[in-house]
Amino acid sequence: MSSLPASLQHLIDLLSRFPGVGRKTAQRLAFYLLKANREEAVALAKAIVDIKDRIYRCSICHNIAEEDPCKICTDSHRDRTVICVVQEPMDVLAIERTGHYRGLYHVLGGVLSPLNGIGPEDLHIDSLLRRLTDVKEVILAINPTRDGETTALYLAKLMKNLNVKVTRIAQGLPVGIELEFADELTIAHAIEGRTNF
Amino acid sequence: MSSLPASLQHLIDLLSRFPGVGRKTAQRLAFYLLKANREEAVALAKAIVDIKDRIYRCSICHNIAEEDPCKICTDSHRDRTVICVVQEPMDVLAIERTGHYRGLYHVLGGVLSPLNGIGPEDLHIDSLLRRLTDVKEVILAINPTRDGETTALYLAKLMKNLNVKVTRIAQGLPVGIELEFADELTIAHAIEGRTNF
Repeated sequence: MSSLPASLQHLIDLLSRFPGVGRKTAQRLAFYLLKANREEAVALAKAIVDIKDRIYRCSICHNIAEEDPCKICTDSHRDRTVICVVQEPMDVLAIERTGHYRGLYHVLGGVLSPLNGIGPEDLHIDSLLRRLTDVKEVILAINPTRDGETTALYLAKLMKNLNVKVTRIAQGLPVGIELEFADELTIAHAIEGRTNF
Repeated sequence: MSSLPASLQHLIDLLSRFPGVGRKTAQRLAFYLLKANREEAVALAKAIVDIKDRIYRCSICHNIAEEDPCKICTDSHRDRTVICVVQEPMDVLAIERTGHYRGLYHVLGGVLSPLNGIGPEDLHIDSLLRRLTDVKEVILAINPTRDGETTALYLAKLMKNLNVKVTRIAQGLPVGIELEFADELTIAHAIEGRTNF
């Protein structure tokens, strides 16, 4: 594409690396930045570098934070007897947004995946086990993928004799979906996990 | 969302301003940057500021370029007797990509839009008229929106007595679309612009 200035083409190339951003979208974003005023562009550039400089992993729960331990781990209003285990920091965000959970978290940093060479030593499992003193319940909120299921089973087994209740979040029909359009596994889970009216 | 570090929330806010980028997408992009290594993030930040520092408007055709006049305007292999008039720099890119056009361009910088207070003096129309010496044909490749149509008509009228042929790109059915799914105006244009077999 000789018709594009080199610096613009370079920016488009970098933007295309984003997950879910194709060439056309990258182009649209780059042209938007080209039209934006300089202050706006500089602010974005600064914000990108800032997260690299300011955000760390909490040494207790491994969630992202600007302080260590993170605000959730140090919040005295939260229930310290319950730990919710998730894959990634985004999952913490999703659960926090519901406003329905007041316990602590533990971010695994992924799931077991033999095909991708990810074993227990690659996840924050040891640190989870070390946190279980005074903990009454561990809620496994790992994504219901195949690797996620394997990981949940593995963790449940590890904690079996540790005098802690291990639960998992319910699987079933999401709000607003009709039976007709749900996949079979979801329907099977919904039937299996049925509750009394 | 107290659970997100402030610097990350700030980045998400800035990314959400992009056209077509909602809160969820902005979040996904921010988390991707958080996972990327520092060099990658810094490279992107630098690329964003770079386009602001390096890209200017060509003083002849008003297309974006790192040099003035731009590479297309100074390219001696191009046909200097034809000028293709487009709205925005992205349109130049779209036409260049086809490899089917070897003339010059003129970027208007928008279209006439009384509702948005955009009149002829806001577009690069005067500079277009000044370029018409030795030009045999002006191709209007303005988007077929209502404002685009108005602008094309306005320009055609202006150039009527200037001894230059004014043409416009064809409207009709796009490749791969079936009549059944095309809108009425497109079909009307396709019929109106029919050519001999």
